[in-house]
Amino acid sequence: MRCFILYASSKDANFYYMTRFKTTDPCIYLLCEDKTELLIVPKMELRRAERESKVKELASFEDLGYKEFIKKLDPKEAVLQVLIRILNECKVKEVVVPENFPAYYAFKLSENFKIVFDNPVKKRRVIKSISEINEIEKVARKILETFDWLLKNFKFNRCEEVRRTVEMKLYEMGCLAEGTIASSGKISSDPHEIGRGKIEDHLVLDIFPKSLESLYYADFTRTIFLNKNLELEEMFDAVLDAQSEALSMIKDGVNARDVHEMVKCKLEERGFKTDKGEGFIHSTGHGVGLEIHEEPRISEQNYTLRSGMVVTVEPGLYYREVGGVRVEDLIVITKDGCKILTDYEKKIKLF
Amino acid sequence: MRCFILYASSKDANFYYMTRFKTTDPCIYLLCEDKTELLIVPKMELRRAERESKVKELASFEDLGYKEFIKKLDPKEAVLQVLIRILNECKVKEVVVPENFPAYYAFKLSENFKIVFDNPVKKRRVIKSISEINEIEKVARKILETFDWLLKNFKFNRCEEVRRTVEMKLYEMGCLAEGTIASSGKISSDPHEIGRGKIEDHLVLDIFPKSLESLYYADFTRTIFLNKNLELEEMFDAVLDAQSEALSMIKDGVNARDVHEMVKCKLEERGFKTDKGEGFIHSTGHGVGLEIHEEPRISEQNYTLRSGMVVTVEPGLYYREVGGVRVEDLIVITKDGCKILTDYEKKIKLF
Repeated sequence: MRCFILYASSKDANFYYMTRFKTTDPCIYLLCEDKTELLIVPKMELRRAERESKVKELASFEDLGYKEFIKKLDPKEAVLQVLIRILNECKVKEVVVPENFPAYYAFKLSENFKIVFDNPVKKRRVIKSISEINEIEKVARKILETFDWLLKNFKFNRCEEVRRTVEMKLYEMGCLAEGTIASSGKISSDPHEIGRGKIEDHLVLDIFPKSLESLYYADFTRTIFLNKNLELEEMFDAVLDAQSEALSMIKDGVNARDVHEMVKCKLEERGFKTDKGEGFIHSTGHGVGLEIHEEPRISEQNYTLRSGMVVTVEPGLYYREVGGVRVEDLIVITKDGCKILTDYEKKIKLF
Repeated sequence: MRCFILYASSKDANFYYMTRFKTTDPCIYLLCEDKTELLIVPKMELRRAERESKVKELASFEDLGYKEFIKKLDPKEAVLQVLIRILNECKVKEVVVPENFPAYYAFKLSENFKIVFDNPVKKRRVIKSISEINEIEKVARKILETFDWLLKNFKFNRCEEVRRTVEMKLYEMGCLAEGTIASSGKISSDPHEIGRGKIEDHLVLDIFPKSLESLYYADFTRTIFLNKNLELEEMFDAVLDAQSEALSMIKDGVNARDVHEMVKCKLEERGFKTDKGEGFIHSTGHGVGLEIHEEPRISEQNYTLRSGMVVTVEPGLYYREVGGVRVEDLIVITKDGCKILTDYEKKIKLF
């Protein structure tokens, strides 16, 4: 018998995807090649797991002898014994684990079982179901509502105020946005700088909350111009054009690498070189789901884009002496093109 | 050369503890036996890491050949090559990894290096520094402020309203509380049930937010009585006494197991048996820091409590046909006893 296992809490997207069980403490999830599933939780979580988890077959660590093991062993050894016991009971010979499986257990299990690295769950997560797309779209709509409100009430002087306002509004709507980027001035040339201090000529606002209920993310960026700045605007126009081309190119079957290369090429044609850590210094996009950055990547790597994938398309340009600009939309890839989940005006001037 | 390594994002408490660098994407952290440290981040994060991380020596994946590797290899292989390269450059022979190190990399590295499982960072994290205690205490104070406000404005009918109000107030104060337990009725006999529906005779309110700035947690539980219920009150009185004894017993040098056994014993003396998943079904306490549940545990296991540890002391009783009660305080262990970080009235009757 071949069996895929996880030992993780619901912080782990693969664990949550398969179990829909929210837990702080790690549990064991098994998916055997005959499709049977088993979730092992602490005994005190068993009835909650019965109510909440989508896994039908449940057991507790205590059912599998944990209480006996812990009398003689330390906790990690006791968990290991539970793992070995359940794998033996299921007559497992080959244990399939994801690359981020805890190394200690993998090493110990390799003494008794054949270990294979593979992640069928991660592969499954790449293509979103209709209900997953719905959850992501719900979050996207809350972002747009927040952003729209923000623009209509824009009287902010500092990056910190914008971030706080956005995060507060989203929280009221049941979404958690951490590290929202509201960045201005030269420092915005670091794409992941969250931004601080006075808002200068422009504001890069990158909002990527997750729903506290469904745990799905959405991701959206706009660059807001508050004062005339021809250099930044020129960069932004190039980014907009590149995004537009990328969006029209994406559909089922397209190689992500070709999209990325086209974006790079378009930006270079407009005179925006990428060199020495400046220019277009990140990938064109990434998958979004239970993780904010997940497969696929739209980058230098070959990757066939498929219908049902939810990805960002977010070209940007970053120069230390000028600053950074970016535009980002979240899309679902379809057979013939894509559906934009974050449909909102792209060039925003508040002056 | 022996070298401890992490490959993790700031979601990993050990990574954040050593680097104080907030990042969604995983980075490499090295701590060599000669105390030199190195943090390897994506190139686009390098300047941000220079500003924000407490690690002085920084490098980028790109500096270590990532761009070349990724041309021929998939991302996890390319990261592996970066790891091998830096370990070779540092003349490392023995690689020390934590038990949750990604198994894939540990297996691959074991082909070239000796792998040792150990976690010096986790050990260090058990004893809190003064500034860590300050951060935890700040969060504890916000919990108490929220709880005090709540009691003074208690006009709630449903568990969900309480949870939302508590979480909203804490969020306004810069703290994130996820899964706050506001549980009533028989369902409160599951300790981790977050609670739903009408508030009956009592409400177990377990609040454990983290500061969004410092990422430190605090943890606090009170049981609020809203109507006379002698059965629940009797359970609660037993729990209170047990907690009081535990608190007076804890000091530097005490075995956590003895504390736990005493609590169990006290509850049994009062007639509250633990059997078939009912009674006192969890441990007496756990460490709190950058994780909500971390070492030490005050449980059946031997563990010497030490001055500077921050732990919860939270006996509870849970019976399916009655419900659950719990009282929980957060303390710092000192040479001669402990300091309570969540000093607040324990028996709360709102009728």
